[in-house]
Amino acid sequence: MNQDQLSIAVVSGDFDKVLAAMVISLGAAAMDMEVKLFFSFWSLAALRDPKKKAHGKNFVSKMFGIMLPKGKDKLKLSNMNMGGMGPKMIKSIMKKHGVLSLEEMFKQAGEFGIEITICEMSMDLMGIKKEELIDYPNLRFAGAVTFAGDAGESSAQLFI
Amino acid sequence: MNQDQLSIAVVSGDFDKVLAAMVISLGAAAMDMEVKLFFSFWSLAALRDPKKKAHGKNFVSKMFGIMLPKGKDKLKLSNMNMGGMGPKMIKSIMKKHGVLSLEEMFKQAGEFGIEITICEMSMDLMGIKKEELIDYPNLRFAGAVTFAGDAGESSAQLFI
Amino acid sequence: MNQDQLSIAVVSGDFDKVLAAMVISLGAAAMDMEVKLFFSFWSLAALRDPKKKAHGKNFVSKMFGIMLPKGKDKLKLSNMNMGGMGPKMIKSIMKKHGVLSLEEMFKQAGEFGIEITICEMSMDLMGIKKEELIDYPNLRFAGAVTFAGDAGESSAQLFI
Repeated sequence: MNQDQLSIAVVSGDFDKVLAAMVISLGAAAMDMEVKLFFSFWSLAALRDPKKKAHGKNFVSKMFGIMLPKGKDKLKLSNMNMGGMGPKMIKSIMKKHGVLSLEEMFKQAGEFGIEITICEMSMDLMGIKKEELIDYPNLRFAGAVTFAGDAGESSAQLFI
Repeated sequence: MNQDQLSIAVVSGDFDKVLAAMVISLGAAAMDMEVKLFFSFWSLAALRDPKKKAHGKNFVSKMFGIMLPKGKDKLKLSNMNMGGMGPKMIKSIMKKHGVLSLEEMFKQAGEFGIEITICEMSMDLMGIKKEELIDYPNLRFAGAVTFAGDAGESSAQLFI
Repeated sequence: MNQDQLSIAVVSGDFDKVLAAMVISLGAAAMDMEVKLFFSFWSLAALRDPKKKAHGKNFVSKMFGIMLPKGKDKLKLSNMNMGGMGPKMIKSIMKKHGVLSLEEMFKQAGEFGIEITICEMSMDLMGIKKEELIDYPNLRFAGAVTFAGDAGESSAQLFI
């Protein structure tokens, strides 16, 4: 077992949950822990690049594509979303208090060498293609067995 | 501590969350980890057998019985449920991509020897009786202290 | 690594989730594990004392103050809240079955020496001030790095 490894399965795609995942990850990385993030299901929305477009999608994939938030700037709050006003308020308070934005947190995560693995089954289920995902230095594509393996060899695991 | 043991508290009863729990469990079992699932609260709905019926319930238990999904086929999505259309879509895509159904995953979990413990307090709170639960080879009934004990001796724990 | 330490990040503020956190914590403490709770985001609502009032809040903080549940007695269920009838039903069944109330669980947690750390960033984001929080014997204020550190040295971690 790796004493200094943290594995997080990020399944929720809510702004507050993805934020929690990134804050904890950066905190752990700052303490020299190795951090491995496994994005699946709704959290894939956070990894969509709004400037990119995928082609050749079938009907269901297009529907999912329309309904899922297009990138981390469009994520909803799990509570008090109030039609998008909630996230706007939170973001402005974060800025006022000098908290990094999600965008900046992902950038820092990349610089810290935090690994992001994207669940391939989730990509299939939601019809999300590789060409519409954000650029990130340390990106892998794998399945739940990989997460189970990472989690098993980590000293800490979270499901968010 | 058991280096190769994974304990999961499954509290959510959403289709996607129960699916995540089973996918991770089967992945871990495939890697020879011992897996212990602790079902409590909303997740009990996934363990109801739609063909079974419990008798002698009081008014509140009957109400819960009506409102809670009757078995894993009736679970809702945590997002984009769209009156049941969301789960139907996901299930048809799962089938198309050769992913096991929840029903098959529970069957395989039983064959892998994955232990399912049902939270007795939750059964009391939701008025769910033993005679309305699915047949499963490795079923236990216990309380949160048991989960805490299992989690403490496991190398990996998740709360879903 | 501390073999007998459980760290829980409590992010959800739903009645059932906070209840699960406390039940698992008390179960673990009863087995002589050291338990550290890290309250952030929505869960801060559970730590508000309805009898206390904070002064000098700005507009946004006041709005959050009004919208967030005022204390653990006002928390909603994550499912079947039914305008507050769900929690009332659950609480009356808990009482009938001799389960401790949330109030009593926090009291016992304090007696067991369970540590509660409150996320300072969350207090900033939600405009919650120290003077409106419950009295609790073992209360700390810190950030996510502290949670990451606690989680890394614990044998078990949960994200609720």
